[in-house]
Amino acid sequence: MPDSQNDRIYTAALLVIGDEILSGRTQDKNIAQLASWLGVQGIRLREARVVPDDEPAIVAAVNALRVAHDYLFTTGGIGPTHDDITVDAVAAALGLPVEENAEARAILEAYYATRGGLNPARLRMARAPLGASLIPNTYSGAPGIRIENIFMMAGVPAITAGMLAALTGTLEGGLPVLSETIGAWAQESEVADLLRETERAHEGCQIGSYPFFHEGRVGGNFVVRSIDADRLAQCVAELTQGLAALGKATVAGGI
Amino acid sequence: MPDSQNDRIYTAALLVIGDEILSGRTQDKNIAQLASWLGVQGIRLREARVVPDDEPAIVAAVNALRVAHDYLFTTGGIGPTHDDITVDAVAAALGLPVEENAEARAILEAYYATRGGLNPARLRMARAPLGASLIPNTYSGAPGIRIENIFMMAGVPAITAGMLAALTGTLEGGLPVLSETIGAWAQESEVADLLRETERAHEGCQIGSYPFFHEGRVGGNFVVRSIDADRLAQCVAELTQGLAALGKATVAGGI
Repeated sequence: MPDSQNDRIYTAALLVIGDEILSGRTQDKNIAQLASWLGVQGIRLREARVVPDDEPAIVAAVNALRVAHDYLFTTGGIGPTHDDITVDAVAAALGLPVEENAEARAILEAYYATRGGLNPARLRMARAPLGASLIPNTYSGAPGIRIENIFMMAGVPAITAGMLAALTGTLEGGLPVLSETIGAWAQESEVADLLRETERAHEGCQIGSYPFFHEGRVGGNFVVRSIDADRLAQCVAELTQGLAALGKATVAGGI
Repeated sequence: MPDSQNDRIYTAALLVIGDEILSGRTQDKNIAQLASWLGVQGIRLREARVVPDDEPAIVAAVNALRVAHDYLFTTGGIGPTHDDITVDAVAAALGLPVEENAEARAILEAYYATRGGLNPARLRMARAPLGASLIPNTYSGAPGIRIENIFMMAGVPAITAGMLAALTGTLEGGLPVLSETIGAWAQESEVADLLRETERAHEGCQIGSYPFFHEGRVGGNFVVRSIDADRLAQCVAELTQGLAALGKATVAGGI
């Protein structure tokens, strides 16, 4: 069982695999989706990489990231076509053979029973590194694959979302990072000193500054993050007072 | 002058810098934006990484990527606040001191003359590694920064777009990658053999397969890429014929 009182920091990396992201054809949505989901699990996304459908590039990234973090997630490259090489590349990175996973085959047989039956391309999606377990796919047939600390998920964001939903609560994490946003009609260059000094005065809190242009006016959202609710509240209160002292109108929750 | 007949392959990497991307607060748009722009310049985006506002993480990524590629672009972390540390981290990676850049200071003085004047936070945006040149910012005041093969750009996508527009045509690249899309009402698992065999039969062409669900129907867009227009056209023609032979209706240009 995950220990929610654990104050160790758990980290994860994401490897996005696919030529379509690096050609600009497809806008990645999985970095933001995974990041938000991990936050709720008490796990911090510390790094993301995007690599093409190229086995040496995938292997190198998998081996760099899986040892540097508690968890490595991948998205993309687990479909039925010739450019879907994630399973083979992860197995190569781990020095494991690829086998036909009996449980995955049974899932695909059931799914395609009313959809034209299995064929060799569809059967490719039953291949997994030896010893893998499966991640349920509630959206379409082919499951995701877990081996060691690596979670291979689909590239299509709606399918990835279903796989993450299936994993919710199953991974050991630490305290979730809490955050609170203060919006202000202020240029960040007018309040930079306040932000820096407020962050310094509140150990265990980080303040991020995100300027925007909205209806012709310049403003900023200032996001305070901490794993400690009391420290967070103190830091937010002091930053709000500081902005008011500079004559800046604020909006709790952000603009 | 860039040599447009050059058939060397030019590669680039992108380093996205910012806690807000890894927390899920902000959806990155710069990977897709830079990828599309690079394609037109005849430069291939081969890798993207996202790291937090953490100097050791930025330094390590900069040093890995700048030597592996012709160009390294960064987005984020060049604003006026305490969490904007890209300039310092890139200078540290290169072993260079950071100076106040006289040209950048002049740009900021002019920009802020009617906007409340320079202050210490705004002056931070004139800091650059020794020997840097500037990338014009047509959207707001603070310029981007080029040092060696590294291009530091803003994180806000609209500002990044202006910086890329200013760089258009100034970088040496090779032949641009051409692409053509064929849409078909086909599941990719029904046509996987055709895709693989067609790609194999057409040297210098790659075929990507991108399934979709649209108005309750399953389809796929198949993207053929090549730097050679004749080879591209032959491959597209053969793939279109192959899909028709399997009884699949196709839509030139994609669905």
